[in-house]
Amino acid sequence: MPLDILPSLLKESKTKIVLLIMDGLGGLPLVPGGPTTLEAAQTPNMDRLAAEGTLGRSIPVRPGITPGSGPAHLGLFGYDPLQYPVGRGVMEALGIGMDIGKGDVAARGNLCTLDAKGNITDRRAGRISSEEAKPIIESLQSIKVEGVKAEVQHVKEYRFALVLRGKGLKGDIEDTDPQGTGAKPLAAKASNAGSKKAAAAVNEWTKKALKILAKQPKANGLTLRGFGGDPALPTYKDAYGLRAGCVAVYPMYKGVSKLVGMDVVKFSGESPTDEFAAAKKVWNNYNFLFIHVKKTDSMGEDGNFDGKVKIIEGVDQAMPGLMALKPDVLIITGDHSTPVKMRSHSWHPVPLLLWAPELAFRDEQTRFGERACSQGGLGTLLATDIMPLALAHAGRLEKFGA
Amino acid sequence: MPLDILPSLLKESKTKIVLLIMDGLGGLPLVPGGPTTLEAAQTPNMDRLAAEGTLGRSIPVRPGITPGSGPAHLGLFGYDPLQYPVGRGVMEALGIGMDIGKGDVAARGNLCTLDAKGNITDRRAGRISSEEAKPIIESLQSIKVEGVKAEVQHVKEYRFALVLRGKGLKGDIEDTDPQGTGAKPLAAKASNAGSKKAAAAVNEWTKKALKILAKQPKANGLTLRGFGGDPALPTYKDAYGLRAGCVAVYPMYKGVSKLVGMDVVKFSGESPTDEFAAAKKVWNNYNFLFIHVKKTDSMGEDGNFDGKVKIIEGVDQAMPGLMALKPDVLIITGDHSTPVKMRSHSWHPVPLLLWAPELAFRDEQTRFGERACSQGGLGTLLATDIMPLALAHAGRLEKFGA
Repeated sequence: MPLDILPSLLKESKTKIVLLIMDGLGGLPLVPGGPTTLEAAQTPNMDRLAAEGTLGRSIPVRPGITPGSGPAHLGLFGYDPLQYPVGRGVMEALGIGMDIGKGDVAARGNLCTLDAKGNITDRRAGRISSEEAKPIIESLQSIKVEGVKAEVQHVKEYRFALVLRGKGLKGDIEDTDPQGTGAKPLAAKASNAGSKKAAAAVNEWTKKALKILAKQPKANGLTLRGFGGDPALPTYKDAYGLRAGCVAVYPMYKGVSKLVGMDVVKFSGESPTDEFAAAKKVWNNYNFLFIHVKKTDSMGEDGNFDGKVKIIEGVDQAMPGLMALKPDVLIITGDHSTPVKMRSHSWHPVPLLLWAPELAFRDEQTRFGERACSQGGLGTLLATDIMPLALAHAGRLEKFGA
Repeated sequence: MPLDILPSLLKESKTKIVLLIMDGLGGLPLVPGGPTTLEAAQTPNMDRLAAEGTLGRSIPVRPGITPGSGPAHLGLFGYDPLQYPVGRGVMEALGIGMDIGKGDVAARGNLCTLDAKGNITDRRAGRISSEEAKPIIESLQSIKVEGVKAEVQHVKEYRFALVLRGKGLKGDIEDTDPQGTGAKPLAAKASNAGSKKAAAAVNEWTKKALKILAKQPKANGLTLRGFGGDPALPTYKDAYGLRAGCVAVYPMYKGVSKLVGMDVVKFSGESPTDEFAAAKKVWNNYNFLFIHVKKTDSMGEDGNFDGKVKIIEGVDQAMPGLMALKPDVLIITGDHSTPVKMRSHSWHPVPLLLWAPELAFRDEQTRFGERACSQGGLGTLLATDIMPLALAHAGRLEKFGA
């Protein structure tokens, strides 16, 4: 359970909570003393919320740890990613929109090049392009394995995801990647008796796949890594007593939401305005909405300062549509920082805004930005502290003890 | 142990530590931008200490968790209330001044109304008044149970506390409250073999109690909940090497202090001046004094802004009496926040002042209040961090490792 005592403290309420995530929100100035993208952006709506609410900063996993999108979102949802490890295979599958249900086993796959003896000569199949690799992976979709349904989908370049579905499957299986060239891919080996059936199915699937790949010049082999199953996380209902909906465009975020029992809201369009309109449509069905904006992160990874600024400004301009719904608690933050000058995720604490009329402690800050947040009334918290704070400000927690 | 490494680091010292708790000290402004009660209060003495010392904020249990008085004080004393759960029965008994020693078992009791078949028709005995209920509970004090001493005392309205004392008792016993009407109270059932003797004694006591209650119109039944024993906490002597005394007016705080091995100081009066005079009297007997002021919390729960301000000002006016004793380390904080506008305990971080000549890091803050504390040099800490900081500033801890 995210925080063990929470379920015993939950109380009924009609309040609604919105968690608005701008992916990779946090940043660094391009030049000393300069603004970050959030500081450079014109955000009158969020600044008003900042003035009325409390600012602070969220540490995604632990100080100094740069998270991937999966662990970062688990943390935001209140599930310490160190305590609830989710297999890389599961994350890879979720990231391209494959479902992971109870009893499924997922792995990340790499196409590779084998020599005549079956030894690996290139672990990434000569950096094969996505255009070349996609039909090759699709040719593996015809493989049948006795008693198991195998689904395989292309991810990017040499990478793919494999999901096995069936009865009696467990994902404690060692990597088949020998972690170097000059060696054969290993057989899938179960780490415990419960995973033997799945390991055998993986080996049968691999054997059939190799036959299909045999005629390929570069991609005539494959390795599998990061095996794992559904992490069986406590649901939002069980952990927080919340009916939760996810409004997101990208598969990864829908997938992680499903892992914690959120419904994924269907809608068309992908702008913040479209997302807030979707929130409006389902407003009466949920008491918690997770709304995910991806492009802040994409712009950060592209090193596009002005682009990230514009995305943030676009979210701000759409804010009245969200506030018109009258949430009782609104949290605005990111899953991690993606500083433009790093062009990558980073470990830097993420700006955090908590807005709740009446109950939020008003600090002296009046502007949503990195420097203001470092002086904010919430201080610097772990991401996993956000959900208990949201529940408290929503009047959804009883007193602990007498 | 509060912090496992502490006992190995303790060193002898003649220094003295005072922990001054204003119950429910923290608050929120009544109107946006307005002062909290602590900010509105004229506190020249505490402001001087704030200027000379360091400010910060204390999180009682975890962010977002609103604690009862028991867990909140355990946290202040350095015992994480999530790691050291104390049964509700024990807290209820301590709260009315009943002793809980090793091997005792306590429970909370409710008077209830039973129909002719023995099914509960009202779980709170028709909201019976304290005046009616008190003599009814006192009529149960004559009950004798073989091999066990049973003590029962009225708490408030339909509520009472039951304490069993004797050899071989353990409190792992399930509630007898069926959690609804239309059902009979359950028999007390031991959750493990060690608690069987106590469960049998509870059942014998209940049988005899029901005979006495039979003639009552409303309160002809009872249920018992929250069984538990002495939590056997490490003492202040063992955990911190401190001879600790408690100066408090209300039973609950004396009780929790006893659980960690503090002596309860006897004195007359109940004003801060009386409490500081009591501290002076026993000054030579202890190297740690916990001094508890209750009425800040009471005024908060009454929604009385001016009243809470006056109580805080009264403490401040009495401060010279405390400072004349020349403590080496003084901590001033609360066990939790009790914002006037919420009229209840809350989860908001609590203003914290650490004063120690020479060794406290002087921050820029010169006024004891919520906003100043949110910018203070200690940052925002868990309450359990306070005792190690007090010991450090008192020169009572050796270096850890080489």
